[in-house]
Amino acid sequence: MCLLQHTFLDANRNVMFAGDASDMKIESVDFYYLAIPEVLDIGDGSQDALLVRVRAGGYTGWGECEASPLVSIASWNCPMSHSACKPVSASVLGEQLDDIKDIGRINRKVRAASLDLLQADHTLSGIDIALWDLLGQAKGEPVYRLLGQSYAFPKIAYASQLFGDDPQSTLERARAVVRAGFRAAKFGWGPYGLSTAQADADQVRAAREGLGSEAVLLVDAGTVWHDDVEAARARLDVLQECRVGWLEEPFVSGALDAYRSLSRLSGSVPLAGGEGCHTGHQAIHMIDHAGVGYIQIDTGRIGGITTAREVALHAEARGVRYVNHTFTTHLALSASLQPYAGMESHDICEYPFAPSALGRDFTRMRLEPDATGCVRAPDAPGLGVQPDTTALKPYLQDVEIRVAGRTRFRSQPFD
Amino acid sequence: MCLLQHTFLDANRNVMFAGDASDMKIESVDFYYLAIPEVLDIGDGSQDALLVRVRAGGYTGWGECEASPLVSIASWNCPMSHSACKPVSASVLGEQLDDIKDIGRINRKVRAASLDLLQADHTLSGIDIALWDLLGQAKGEPVYRLLGQSYAFPKIAYASQLFGDDPQSTLERARAVVRAGFRAAKFGWGPYGLSTAQADADQVRAAREGLGSEAVLLVDAGTVWHDDVEAARARLDVLQECRVGWLEEPFVSGALDAYRSLSRLSGSVPLAGGEGCHTGHQAIHMIDHAGVGYIQIDTGRIGGITTAREVALHAEARGVRYVNHTFTTHLALSASLQPYAGMESHDICEYPFAPSALGRDFTRMRLEPDATGCVRAPDAPGLGVQPDTTALKPYLQDVEIRVAGRTRFRSQPFD
Repeated sequence: MCLLQHTFLDANRNVMFAGDASDMKIESVDFYYLAIPEVLDIGDGSQDALLVRVRAGGYTGWGECEASPLVSIASWNCPMSHSACKPVSASVLGEQLDDIKDIGRINRKVRAASLDLLQADHTLSGIDIALWDLLGQAKGEPVYRLLGQSYAFPKIAYASQLFGDDPQSTLERARAVVRAGFRAAKFGWGPYGLSTAQADADQVRAAREGLGSEAVLLVDAGTVWHDDVEAARARLDVLQECRVGWLEEPFVSGALDAYRSLSRLSGSVPLAGGEGCHTGHQAIHMIDHAGVGYIQIDTGRIGGITTAREVALHAEARGVRYVNHTFTTHLALSASLQPYAGMESHDICEYPFAPSALGRDFTRMRLEPDATGCVRAPDAPGLGVQPDTTALKPYLQDVEIRVAGRTRFRSQPFD
Repeated sequence: MCLLQHTFLDANRNVMFAGDASDMKIESVDFYYLAIPEVLDIGDGSQDALLVRVRAGGYTGWGECEASPLVSIASWNCPMSHSACKPVSASVLGEQLDDIKDIGRINRKVRAASLDLLQADHTLSGIDIALWDLLGQAKGEPVYRLLGQSYAFPKIAYASQLFGDDPQSTLERARAVVRAGFRAAKFGWGPYGLSTAQADADQVRAAREGLGSEAVLLVDAGTVWHDDVEAARARLDVLQECRVGWLEEPFVSGALDAYRSLSRLSGSVPLAGGEGCHTGHQAIHMIDHAGVGYIQIDTGRIGGITTAREVALHAEARGVRYVNHTFTTHLALSASLQPYAGMESHDICEYPFAPSALGRDFTRMRLEPDATGCVRAPDAPGLGVQPDTTALKPYLQDVEIRVAGRTRFRSQPFD
């Protein structure tokens, strides 16, 4: 718990709206596809990014979509297929944006008009985040306050990274985490789950050894067993022996029955999952029916901050702990903290420990852990973090999409 | 029941494989984006289509993806984001295709390697259908037999169309259905659910009047109430009065709790839903937890025939009736019939009654209802239906997608 570290806002202070933010309309939405020069076939999700910029009423908001930038761009401005399969743009451009109710209305409009466009939820996510950022700036308030939360409580940052290729490499990565001042770490993907239970045991023991006995150790199986409960069960003994704080994504997000079965066997090791959810309903089903102890939400996938907040409230009501999912940038990190910033007992957060050069260069301002290894949502209007568009220029990918002789999308430089 | 109409195959006949279909590899996968000149803002999903052609070992298979052709094309060949967010092509091209086990393996490979690419399930759907069609031709067997079903039982074709703009128009549409020899009809979308319960009552009564007292009447709410049980409840009396065979999609596919609540109130009117499911898990959750009487699967969305068959078997085991979802072409119709062709008591199927010109021109061969208003999966190798590439030429849309100076996709004419 990091209660001593954070600055309390004045609880009696009303939400004051700076400037005249009435009668704003969404004037433009721009997408920037960013990538490192050579994307490798590894689990590192920070190798590319889709940055979204929204402009309205003289304000600019930023957000990010996870994942596959090109496909999310295509769903922004594809031709209409029918009345329930429209491009996302049809429900966003020109919309009124004076109040948080407008963001809810835009969300509902996108979900209905793009019902049959599967990728639309990912595209909406970055737009929704940018809308919250913009409205926060227009009203001079951090997003978490617009969401009705008075304080941004500190969260124990867990350093999130991949397993090493071998136990020795994992041991060294764990030691580096401790040296950097983190009190918690997660290892995932890489070779974990791909060969024998013994090989996985060696990896988890190496991580525990490198972290020492005190730090929190989390393990991410990256859906490797799909819905095979027995395969996961064979790893439980060592996870318990190493006092692992959670086993994450033993299965795909939809495998509720497999999750529930494993949760009855996993003893001291709670299950975590949910990053693949792209609707609130899916996450709520995981909370209600999968036996998870932690629900992990990626604001860049589930539809943005709006839907993530609904899930956070449901998790709180059901006694399941909400935690962000983010492996990429500090813009995404701030967005992912907002929905549960004010939920004091939900006190852990994923923190990108070893992102790609793109992830590191993304923002000038970074949410650095404090002396106790905690971070919190910035006490600044909107998300409080802006992309560094100068540093990002080398990563910008030219994109052009043409259908039936008409340009549907052409990338623009930062202006 | 249409038991007298169909031709029984010889139950003792073994599945014989024509020709030498061993050592085939997937040589090419091509996508053809087709659309009518002016796509209207109405619920008619047959206004565009994404046709998929797979070639291997001298054979050609065809399939279709629903929906949003451009976005599904983008997910075929987008740049890789990371090891679990690869383009679908990475898991398909060059793969071995000798047996139905290979199709299962390719499915699992796509789902794992494109885990974070949301649209991938829709792209996979058309490919999977084409793989079954191709393998059926290589082995000289209808797809339903490759799936382990001896017979293709007739299904009562229900004429599927939109509600008219007003009750009089709906009445006339219902009369046209009866004149065309159908014994069942579904009306959906249009104005239904968008204004008052009284307006909806007028529509449903008009449909019943037009059909007469004998024909089966089905109603499709097109997810209009999202997850609002009370809004749906207000329509139940009239649905019961008009002896409606099912109420379809009162809510979005994920709203399991709302479905279950309504199912306890709906009395003689069973609920139907599931066309939005894009994984087997989602459909299985609807079967197990939503209280639906009918599970409606679109093979063009759920991942193709492979996943649809898994759902059909689960539905059969749980006493829920499986029914196809298709509103478009006769190629999609054949694909959608295969997974449950041999399930005798699951004896109704959706039949596109008033498709667009594109839907009508799509194939030369059509699955016409017989004298009793039934259709069945063709007794011919593969899907038994091929696209009419000559007739489709005028509908072909030029598509070009470029990223970072490289062409990721360029449409080709039919060859």
